[in-house]
This record gives sequence, structure tokens and C-alpha cells, in this order.
Amino acid sequence: MKTEQRIFFLNGSFVPEKDAVVSVLDRGMLFGDGVYEISAVVNSRTIDNESHLKRLERSLAMVNIPSPYAFEKWVQLQDELIGLNHLDEGTVYIQVTRGVQQERSFLPSRNMSPTVIMLTQAKGVINNPGYGEGIAVVAEPEQRWARRDIKSNNLLAQVLARQAASERGAQEAWLVEDGFVTEGAASSAFIVSTKGELVTRQLSQAILPGVTRGTLLQFASDNNLELVQRPFTVAEAYAAREAFISSSNEIALAVVKIDDRIIGDGSPGPVTKALREAYVKAIVTRRPALGEPR
Amino acid sequence: MKTEQRIFFLNGSFVPEKDAVVSVLDRGMLFGDGVYEISAVVNSRTIDNESHLKRLERSLAMVNIPSPYAFEKWVQLQDELIGLNHLDEGTVYIQVTRGVQQERSFLPSRNMSPTVIMLTQAKGVINNPGYGEGIAVVAEPEQRWARRDIKSNNLLAQVLARQAASERGAQEAWLVEDGFVTEGAASSAFIVSTKGELVTRQLSQAILPGVTRGTLLQFASDNNLELVQRPFTVAEAYAAREAFISSSNEIALAVVKIDDRIIGDGSPGPVTKALREAYVKAIVTRRPALGEPR
Repeated sequence: MKTEQRIFFLNGSFVPEKDAVVSVLDRGMLFGDGVYEISAVVNSRTIDNESHLKRLERSLAMVNIPSPYAFEKWVQLQDELIGLNHLDEGTVYIQVTRGVQQERSFLPSRNMSPTVIMLTQAKGVINNPGYGEGIAVVAEPEQRWARRDIKSNNLLAQVLARQAASERGAQEAWLVEDGFVTEGAASSAFIVSTKGELVTRQLSQAILPGVTRGTLLQFASDNNLELVQRPFTVAEAYAAREAFISSSNEIALAVVKIDDRIIGDGSPGPVTKALREAYVKAIVTRRPALGEPR
Repeated sequence: MKTEQRIFFLNGSFVPEKDAVVSVLDRGMLFGDGVYEISAVVNSRTIDNESHLKRLERSLAMVNIPSPYAFEKWVQLQDELIGLNHLDEGTVYIQVTRGVQQERSFLPSRNMSPTVIMLTQAKGVINNPGYGEGIAVVAEPEQRWARRDIKSNNLLAQVLARQAASERGAQEAWLVEDGFVTEGAASSAFIVSTKGELVTRQLSQAILPGVTRGTLLQFASDNNLELVQRPFTVAEAYAAREAFISSSNEIALAVVKIDDRIIGDGSPGPVTKALREAYVKAIVTRRPALGEPR
């Protein structure tokens, strides 16, 4: 599928990509005043979609933007967009901004009409090219705002962290605050400690409540892995048996290098692979469920 | 001037407001990946414009967006836009985003073409309705990211702080971190202490280097006011003789109430008024200078 031929959803209509334009006065443009979600798609069906849509509702409530659609309507729109774009594997993106305001003002007008944007991207989810060899990450300073539990479009700190990672030859940055890793710029961060425990930071306003993170923790629990939710340091990550990241379209992706340190034997470890395989198996063997296009 | 009739500048062209649209794939929309400046305009001429344009260059460099125009070109575009909109008093806004990227990715493509947006707003600058009585501010938690010295379009924390202020009957929020005021959501914060010193926080990554703040400090120095640049607490502000905010289009605006405390005698104080009058006098008696439309 060529991206040139995509159909987007914008404010109630399905439109060709080139016609998906918004006023420069949209508060998404002027203030980053919006929130978003991304659901992965495999075999033309969304994954963990109910959790993504619930988090979208929560993000909207946290920033005082009225929810434009009920759950069933979001699902119907996602389903239709996936169909129109003949999307087999990739992502479906939703963004809701506070809308267009003619007078630029930090204080929003009353009764604004939110802007709704939806688009698809074709990419490997089951077949992510990084799965075989794993990726490199680098430690970068945590510079984000205080409410990282809100999935907002204020993403400049993440963009700068990814640029810094790229310049250092890595694919992701692990953000460090007060000596501890919060999470990745656009992923959750896990290690398997020297004692064999699966460690990831506990939920708080310091990190995004990752949907895939939650599903992986459920798999870990189902498989009786020793699981600890607590902050960990970069030094602890250097010494870890394994490290990996999770996100909706990367599932569980091995980290084989952090800064200049090789993690474990430098290849994806058994816990990472087992969790990824459990997730992939659950995806490909699933039956249609509420919240998933058929 | 009706805002409906405005002319905007967008990517090299002057266009009617309704045609000033950008792709939803603009990184300004998806990531808040841009920076901006606002120069006040009085008698159809910009104020302190050279400082604003220098800060724009700095912000662009800090986020690795190439500068689209040289100084003289920015001035020419501002001048033309002010003329096309018959703007006598108000503001001219410039925003530069990293541009449009077809594949949504935190990591920008190489050689992207920045998006340039310019627009005017008519509003009172010399005749701000708040000058007579002053405004109320409320203390709110500082939630912004670590690089507040960059004037970026990641402004959601500021929007939420202004919403909170509005709900509490105030016009501005003073943001509090570790017990000290950083600055206002969209203005610099000053007090005149019980000892009669003019106090405002020193420059660092914790606050925006306010252009109007800088000009006011120069006036204060010229008038031999005792000036101290250091953090101050909310309790110190409650007890202050005077308090005020500054911004490019509010100049120096008295704060007569902080939370439920009346400041001084509850009306604009002599230092605030003297600084504002000095600034206004400098504006209305000035001669055309480089960086200002004639």
C-alpha cells in the first residue's frame, strides 16, 4: 500500500490524505492541545483496542476535552478506516484536539468543537525487523512535563530524545530522572535483573500506563515469572540479564545494548522472546471480540 | 478590524485566514514540534522586535529546526502582514514547525522543509483593560517540561494552568516548583518586596527569558531601582508591597490579588505604574529603527 493513496478520517468525513488539512488556528497546532492513541493492527484487526480507547477517554478527561464519540462509534470508525485503506498490518492513529479558536488565547473558548483525526500506517507488527537482533538504547535526561500519564501531543521532549538517540547510533532513549529510568521516549522499559526478576517501573504520573506493558505483565503473571514493579537505575540495566521495550506496534523488542554496554550475551534473551511469542500467539489465534474489526 | 478578514502568511504566501490550513501530518500538529514568537504592535510598528527574532533563532537552534529566514526577511514579512491587515495595535505571531512528514515517526526525516505561519491579532497593548484595576493570580503547581527557556508549542501545561486560574476567578497562574514561583503560565512574574526591592527570578532553563522582562529590568536599572534576580516564594509574594506580570502585549500589569490575599492596598502600586509608564513612553516617542516596520 502506498501511503499516497491513504484515506484519513477528519471531523466526520473520510477524505483523501491530501485533503486532510486543519486550520493553523487549531489548538493542536498552536498549543499541542490534544491527546492521541495508537492501536496496532494485525490481520486487519486492532489489538488491545478496548484498553487504548479507555486510555483515550481518560486522557481527554484529564485535559478537559469533551469526548467526541462513544466507544462503539470509535470502533466502527477504526474498522471502516482499516477497510478503506486495505490495511493488513500496521497501526491506526487517533488524535483529538480541543479544536479551532479564532483568537489565539491560552484559555480555551467555551463549547469548542474538538478536532478528530484518524489515519492508518502500514508497518510490520508481528514481523518487526528489530526482533531478530534487538536494538540499542541510550540513556538521556528525562525532560518531559509532570503528567506523563496523559498521552498528549506535547511530544517535543520525546522528539529531542529520539534525535539524541539517533545521533548516538541507537533506536530508543531511556529517560533518566533522579538516577532512575522512567521509561523510553516512546515505549515502556523492562529489564530482567541479575536475580532473574522481571522489573519495570510502577505506574504513576511519571510514566505512561502502557497498554502493551499491561498485557505483557499479565502474560508474565500467567507464566509465573517473578515480577517486580519498581524503578531501576541505568547501572542495574547495564548489569541485567535481559532488557527490552514494549509498545503497541513493537510488542516486546529486545534491547541488546545500552550506551556502550552489551546486555547479556548481546542477543535477545529467553524471557523477552517468551513474552513476545506469547503475545504473538494470542494475537494470531484470537477470535473476533468487542472492540475489534471483523 | 474583524478577524474574519485577516490575511495570514503561510509558507511563502499571504492567504486569507480561511485558506491558512496545514496537513494533519504537520509535526506541529502531531508532536507540537515547533517554536513561536509574538511581538506586540503599537502604531503599526513592532516593539522590541529584534529581541523577539533573536529568541526565535535561539529556540529554532535548540530544537534543531533550520531557520527559514534571515532577520531582515522576517522583518519585511512582519511589516507586510501588519500592512495587509491594517493592524494598528495588537500582536504579530510567528510559528515555525519542523514541517510535514508523511510517515508519523518521532524521529524526523532528514532535510524537512519547515512550516512557517504568521498571523496578526488586534488587541489593546497601550490600552490593556487590566491596567486600571490590576488582575488576580493564583498559585498552581509547575508541571512544564525541563526546557522552559525554549519558546516551544508544547503548551498544554500552560493551558491547563490558565484553565485552573480561570476556574478560581483569576486571569493568570503563578507556577510553583519546590516552594518557589518560577513564572506565570504566559508571563514573567515580579514582586516589590517588603524591603522595596524589585524581585524576579534569574534566567535559567526553569523560565522563559522574557523580552519584556529584560526591557523592564533595563528601565529599573536606569531608574536606580534596587533590583534582585532570585526565586521568591508564594508567602513572600503574599506579603509583597506590589506584584506584577510582564509580557509582550501586557507590558507591566499589576497583580492586586494572589490566591485569597490582597497585595499591597489592592490597587496597582507605584513601581508597577512607573515601569509601565516608562515603557509606554519609550514606545510612543520612539523613532523608526531597524527591525520595526515604518
